[in-house]
Amino acid sequence: MSNSKVNKVKHIDLDQIKDPKFLKDLSYKELDVLASDIRSYLLDKTSKYGGHLSSNLGAVELTIALHRSFDFSKDKLIFDVGHQSYTHKILTGRSLEKLRTQEGVSGFQKMNESVYDPYEAGHSSTSISAANGFAIARDLNNEKYDIVAFVGDSSIVSGLAFEGLNNIAHSDHKVIIVLNDNGMSISKPVGGLAKSFAKISTSAGYNRFKSSIRRRMNKKNKKSGIYKFFSSIKNWFKRHLVAPNIFQDLGFAYIGPVDGHNIKAIEKAIARAKNTSKSVVIHACTLKGKGYQFAENDETGYWHGVSPFNIETGKPNNLHEGQISWSHLYSDLCESELEEHKNAILISPATIKGAGLDNLSPKYKDRVIDVGIAEEHAVTLASALSLSGYHPIISIYSTFLQRAYDEVSHDLARMNCSATFLVDRSGLVGADGETHQGIYDEAYLSSIPNVTITIASNADEAKALFDESFAKHGPFFIRLPRTLLNKPEKINSVNIPYGTWIKLAESSKKDLAIISCGPSVRELLPLLKENNIDATVVNAIYLNPIDKKMLDELLGYSQIVIYDPYSTQGSLVNLTSSYLLEKRFKGALKAFSIPNIFVKQGSINQQLERFGLLPSQIIAQLKQDK
Amino acid sequence: MSNSKVNKVKHIDLDQIKDPKFLKDLSYKELDVLASDIRSYLLDKTSKYGGHLSSNLGAVELTIALHRSFDFSKDKLIFDVGHQSYTHKILTGRSLEKLRTQEGVSGFQKMNESVYDPYEAGHSSTSISAANGFAIARDLNNEKYDIVAFVGDSSIVSGLAFEGLNNIAHSDHKVIIVLNDNGMSISKPVGGLAKSFAKISTSAGYNRFKSSIRRRMNKKNKKSGIYKFFSSIKNWFKRHLVAPNIFQDLGFAYIGPVDGHNIKAIEKAIARAKNTSKSVVIHACTLKGKGYQFAENDETGYWHGVSPFNIETGKPNNLHEGQISWSHLYSDLCESELEEHKNAILISPATIKGAGLDNLSPKYKDRVIDVGIAEEHAVTLASALSLSGYHPIISIYSTFLQRAYDEVSHDLARMNCSATFLVDRSGLVGADGETHQGIYDEAYLSSIPNVTITIASNADEAKALFDESFAKHGPFFIRLPRTLLNKPEKINSVNIPYGTWIKLAESSKKDLAIISCGPSVRELLPLLKENNIDATVVNAIYLNPIDKKMLDELLGYSQIVIYDPYSTQGSLVNLTSSYLLEKRFKGALKAFSIPNIFVKQGSINQQLERFGLLPSQIIAQLKQDK
Repeated sequence: MSNSKVNKVKHIDLDQIKDPKFLKDLSYKELDVLASDIRSYLLDKTSKYGGHLSSNLGAVELTIALHRSFDFSKDKLIFDVGHQSYTHKILTGRSLEKLRTQEGVSGFQKMNESVYDPYEAGHSSTSISAANGFAIARDLNNEKYDIVAFVGDSSIVSGLAFEGLNNIAHSDHKVIIVLNDNGMSISKPVGGLAKSFAKISTSAGYNRFKSSIRRRMNKKNKKSGIYKFFSSIKNWFKRHLVAPNIFQDLGFAYIGPVDGHNIKAIEKAIARAKNTSKSVVIHACTLKGKGYQFAENDETGYWHGVSPFNIETGKPNNLHEGQISWSHLYSDLCESELEEHKNAILISPATIKGAGLDNLSPKYKDRVIDVGIAEEHAVTLASALSLSGYHPIISIYSTFLQRAYDEVSHDLARMNCSATFLVDRSGLVGADGETHQGIYDEAYLSSIPNVTITIASNADEAKALFDESFAKHGPFFIRLPRTLLNKPEKINSVNIPYGTWIKLAESSKKDLAIISCGPSVRELLPLLKENNIDATVVNAIYLNPIDKKMLDELLGYSQIVIYDPYSTQGSLVNLTSSYLLEKRFKGALKAFSIPNIFVKQGSINQQLERFGLLPSQIIAQLKQDK
Repeated sequence: MSNSKVNKVKHIDLDQIKDPKFLKDLSYKELDVLASDIRSYLLDKTSKYGGHLSSNLGAVELTIALHRSFDFSKDKLIFDVGHQSYTHKILTGRSLEKLRTQEGVSGFQKMNESVYDPYEAGHSSTSISAANGFAIARDLNNEKYDIVAFVGDSSIVSGLAFEGLNNIAHSDHKVIIVLNDNGMSISKPVGGLAKSFAKISTSAGYNRFKSSIRRRMNKKNKKSGIYKFFSSIKNWFKRHLVAPNIFQDLGFAYIGPVDGHNIKAIEKAIARAKNTSKSVVIHACTLKGKGYQFAENDETGYWHGVSPFNIETGKPNNLHEGQISWSHLYSDLCESELEEHKNAILISPATIKGAGLDNLSPKYKDRVIDVGIAEEHAVTLASALSLSGYHPIISIYSTFLQRAYDEVSHDLARMNCSATFLVDRSGLVGADGETHQGIYDEAYLSSIPNVTITIASNADEAKALFDESFAKHGPFFIRLPRTLLNKPEKINSVNIPYGTWIKLAESSKKDLAIISCGPSVRELLPLLKENNIDATVVNAIYLNPIDKKMLDELLGYSQIVIYDPYSTQGSLVNLTSSYLLEKRFKGALKAFSIPNIFVKQGSINQQLERFGLLPSQIIAQLKQDK
């Protein structure tokens, strides 16, 4: 963060900013200081609370220039995803203190936080379609203001973004698209469009930018991916004259490439964009992670989204010694499955790092496909691999799997293709809030024929499920909670026949049965003992199909409790209830699951507590009912 | 079908074809005769059974050329959607007699029909991703064969197709994409890509093709859209030199444009494509509906998918006098809603014609947006319109709505945006089979918070629901069955408070209650009377949320029957069962709904009968239970 110019001009107290109007009065020198101060602030807050870092560090000058060029209390600024909107939040009077906690601001745009947030997201690639909608409304109302979609090079490759581009190009309703191109997506460029971006980056302005980038990179980094990426442009430059690019092909005006860290240059580009009659793309090239060396040198996407860390060392604050995430557990298992099954192919839509799969040995990496943010393609691709005798393992976050609902049904389940889905971040997710909850997949997947949905309660079961998923059961979903588990010393082979539940405790009186699943079922056991509650406890490791034989055994009980703190009632609870009803179960049935609502940010425990779903709360409920 | 050359060479009995090997022995003259005979055959069968016509008439020569150039018992030919694979079926030994009936072949590719069908679809835009998957498998196996994706210009604009293109361009696994460009999509070109196709159609070969098209069109048609479309190319030609096009931008080799009705020219293009080292696009220009004047002159997409018709007059066989489809009923209602609500905007993803919305008066057409095959964009666009004070009406088929699951949840329901969805072709759909069933939407939509799901049982209720949907209830889904109803003489205003069910009959004994919905509930009434079954009959016009007050009234009954022949058990049945269980309903509960499977083609009545879901079967069941 050192900058010799910094001390010569005044600093602005970032927490005292009310709105971005002050920006217009600052000199470019003062703006540079502001940008530097914002970077320090971003580092400070994300190191404390976690959050998206690299993309925010890369978007500082672009955001400043946008707020100087537009009045976004009137004009509309739509950040794609919204994870890179931290500078925007600072400039519109929002403190990042307590970022992403129950008390703090969201990590994404939120309409209830500010008039400067006209739209909300969390999933990628919606900004272009939204901008189109706002533009149509503006023009129907005969109003005059600008609509800006701010979108990264990783988001723009998604199908939804392309549909938006294709429709805007055809439409008379002008929007301004700012393409924030750091040439890396989350980890590395994926796809032809990324190559095309490189190809069109041939103007003099861009070459100046390139030189400046090169100067910043020390010799040690000359072999790095970033350097190679920028160097390769020279070759492109030689081969291709400046020709209409993909945006122009589609019908957009195109301005760029512009150095996305040069406020003056960006402002000039924006001024030109304001004057075009048709929709326009401003292509800005930025350096992801700019200003923080660890993030600048990051090639794996490690610094994309981070947990709290030490700024000096770049090391994560190790709050959880002896514990690992379920993602990392499955990542290790993935390695042994790739070893054992030579026909296994891992497919990830841009979440290799997020799902902990960057730890896979290089020797398996020829069977790893990163398709970029393209969930739909990932699944349809998988169907053809499966029909060819391969077994796709699709690692995907629960909330992003939603985007491939049709492909899971139409392409995979309908042709009964074998595939394993590692549904990462299932259940409540905590800090990311409404847009990222993984609590709906049990329900929506259960609407699709031929699917198997499962969740393990410990590492042994995780391995058993992963193994079983290769036995041609069609699409086989394994849900991975966002919580931690104790790092297992050894993973044992356990035999769990397909579709069967596991009795973890047997009541002598056969009065009360508790059907639960996932790590929570294990947390219940000691609590039941402590509280002298005599219950049969069933681990519903298969959420769909359910174990009807086991349920038949429980028909004589006077009370059955279903406790699924990882889902709404759409699957385990509904399927079990329906079956018990069909069998004319005479006892009392109580079901505890997450209400079918959009759940706001907070810690996972706070969210569970809100719904009375902590194991301790269930025990209290059971005692009260006695 | 008249062609002076036809009589000079021998005709092939199309129903005697075993496989396409014979094609290689035919002269181009004989191939022309074959093409003409195939067109007659296509007309004959589709006029009898209905099906996709225009696209098949346009793809005859392309399909012949492909089968002469490849051996698709080894190479793989993947038709996008598959609706244009009729000629392929004929050439691979499949009769189109009884097309799309329970006994005949499918209207799409089916692996169990032929070794020449390596993949299946029904929804659009999957072929490119599938080709990518097959190519990866081929190369991992070190095998040598070609993989061809055959895709239309309307399908290639969808997001999924773009994700596939973007990934293939980046991949070392070669595929050949045949772009069948008739410049019209289903009705007219939508989007920047369509314009781009026009722009790149500038070669001499294409201009020869254009002249030939012009010759075929009589003077009367000179003002038609097709003519204008082709004429406009001249202007593009003047403005643009031959520059790298969008496919080349992405990294594909590009061959074309080629006259898609000239077998020799296509074969030459294919030969070149086989020799490219990288993935390649063959851009073939065809005339949709070629050889049948009504279809050639069609500008609205009328001849895209047809019901049985008279070949001479082009008129549909009017089998259903006095009846209309639910689509047409809602189309009429749509017109009055657009009149009443000046903030209403109709959005359709390429199903304007299919949903009967082409009948809307031109005066409302400025508030009609056809986004092409872009279901995701349609919904995200709608969210921004809704946030801007407009009320989107999204007309979409149930089965295609699946592709926008994420957008319905993340963009519309999460922000609680008001919108009306006309979910066309809900329930069983008959001839289109597994890929098009509209039986899952109740279940998958119910997994999303904030949604309302409804179905009307008659025209009055249809209007009441449509009206109610404007009252800011968030996303409001109205399901339209694929069946017919008697054309109403007059539509009455009825008052149905939000969320309430309607009692159609009241039992004196309060013993048996039947909860049903949609037109079927009306069919039950006379049958119950005839059979002296004393039942309270409830019309569950709101499928979600359910009417708990009404259910409370029924708690004392000794038997409750839920009968939803339009859906799997995912919504009405599950929600009602769960509530009754929660309320400790002591009587017997029986639920009749469609099993959660992929339902094969047949008539809707055949499909209902298969599951015991005809009203008469329900009555029989009730009598048996008595």
